[in-house]
Amino acid sequence: MITSITTYRVTYADTDPMGVMYYGNYAKLYEIGRTEMIREFGFTYREIEEAGTLMPVASVNTKYLRPIKYDELITIETSLKELPTARMVFHHKIFNENGDLSNTSEVTLVFLDTKSSRPIRPPEKLTEILKGEGLS
Amino acid sequence: MITSITTYRVTYADTDPMGVMYYGNYAKLYEIGRTEMIREFGFTYREIEEAGTLMPVASVNTKYLRPIKYDELITIETSLKELPTARMVFHHKIFNENGDLSNTSEVTLVFLDTKSSRPIRPPEKLTEILKGEGLS
Amino acid sequence: MITSITTYRVTYADTDPMGVMYYGNYAKLYEIGRTEMIREFGFTYREIEEAGTLMPVASVNTKYLRPIKYDELITIETSLKELPTARMVFHHKIFNENGDLSNTSEVTLVFLDTKSSRPIRPPEKLTEILKGEGLS
Amino acid sequence: MITSITTYRVTYADTDPMGVMYYGNYAKLYEIGRTEMIREFGFTYREIEEAGTLMPVASVNTKYLRPIKYDELITIETSLKELPTARMVFHHKIFNENGDLSNTSEVTLVFLDTKSSRPIRPPEKLTEILKGEGLS
Repeated sequence: MITSITTYRVTYADTDPMGVMYYGNYAKLYEIGRTEMIREFGFTYREIEEAGTLMPVASVNTKYLRPIKYDELITIETSLKELPTARMVFHHKIFNENGDLSNTSEVTLVFLDTKSSRPIRPPEKLTEILKGEGLS
Repeated sequence: MITSITTYRVTYADTDPMGVMYYGNYAKLYEIGRTEMIREFGFTYREIEEAGTLMPVASVNTKYLRPIKYDELITIETSLKELPTARMVFHHKIFNENGDLSNTSEVTLVFLDTKSSRPIRPPEKLTEILKGEGLS
Repeated sequence: MITSITTYRVTYADTDPMGVMYYGNYAKLYEIGRTEMIREFGFTYREIEEAGTLMPVASVNTKYLRPIKYDELITIETSLKELPTARMVFHHKIFNENGDLSNTSEVTLVFLDTKSSRPIRPPEKLTEILKGEGLS
Repeated sequence: MITSITTYRVTYADTDPMGVMYYGNYAKLYEIGRTEMIREFGFTYREIEEAGTLMPVASVNTKYLRPIKYDELITIETSLKELPTARMVFHHKIFNENGDLSNTSEVTLVFLDTKSSRPIRPPEKLTEILKGEGLS
């Protein structure tokens, strides 16, 4: 399993009348988590797109365990458990400022050719790096 | 089963560099779907809150089947299959402008006391209406 | 002067811990206002883009006069006062559910060639329609 | 003049079909700029609210000079030029990843009593700090 950690400060823009992170805005946290993980591998999602692969989201399963409040500095933990094939599954845990687990999610992306919009294999470079990190 | 239908026009604000609805913005569609369903029952979520009950989201399971493009007039179909107990589960289907099924989701909400933040039973009024509509 | 009216229901997603529309989300209202005005002319902003013209926003000046609350059905009034040249200026007034003026803004867009990103003249078709509506 | 600098990574969530930051999402950047400036003073906007003062936005004037692209690490420069009285004016400059000035704005906030929603003077503590920093 590969794990990446990043932090995020909750804004007024993120929150709702309950004073907590709006449930729809967690998707942005997952995006930040997986984007920063890829950056740690030495390249970027932007480069993957520019090289001809889109990675749209196919499904999201998420559980909201505790509210996250305005201005909290939260932690996004992103994990990969296996090599991507037709799909790539990111597992996220979000911890509030006190370190309590607040949200878990499983976000599945697929690989599409930018031009044809047809399914393609994951970028060679990505697979190589993940193998090097010990995934199988 | 009770079903409610509403429509929504996709904005530039909703869409991403792929020119399609950003995956995180579907949560707003589910919110609109359940809010308009409650309005059809003759009251509003705002009134439920003012009467002392919060309904935070506990979980979301969603599948993205087809992209939804900028400026499409989409249809949000919201269904309830059973009477709420500690939880209330909304089922959503989103159809693109051509009528193709584009997204399905299951959104579970819980009932909390506004003051104590403790779990409470669903508002009597809501349960009565749903029974009247044939749910059990 | 040409004026177009549209309505919008404020969502939980739009609001902040004060229970009112987040100041950044008004931009979406202006977008809806100008998009629906163009639709009333018989074509769409999407078609303008597809025909090779982008219309990015160059400036926004806005005054927040009254808060707009969650679930209010607000009215967006959009006006054009003169024919677009290099720039097109939309004037917006937003009224809350009681009809009180809540926000005014002036949003200026420019015309760019989709391919070259260079400034171009407004689409002929748009200018013709606006002249037909009496603008000069 | 007091100036504060912070950075922000542009997300997919922030961008639109043009592949650039949606014009409405800049408001969040101004929010981050002023919030981080206040944090540098040794307290937080959250504390100001908890102490009984709301600071809603009264007006925004902004100019979009260059597009900001997906994944750019941008710089938000926030300045105060004078002591707040009934109003507090934040001046923002946003620079793209290459250091080019991309957006300027002037955001004016007012001070309201949390309970009465009536205008009040700026928090004593804030004024003291700003005087200490040389503002007049």
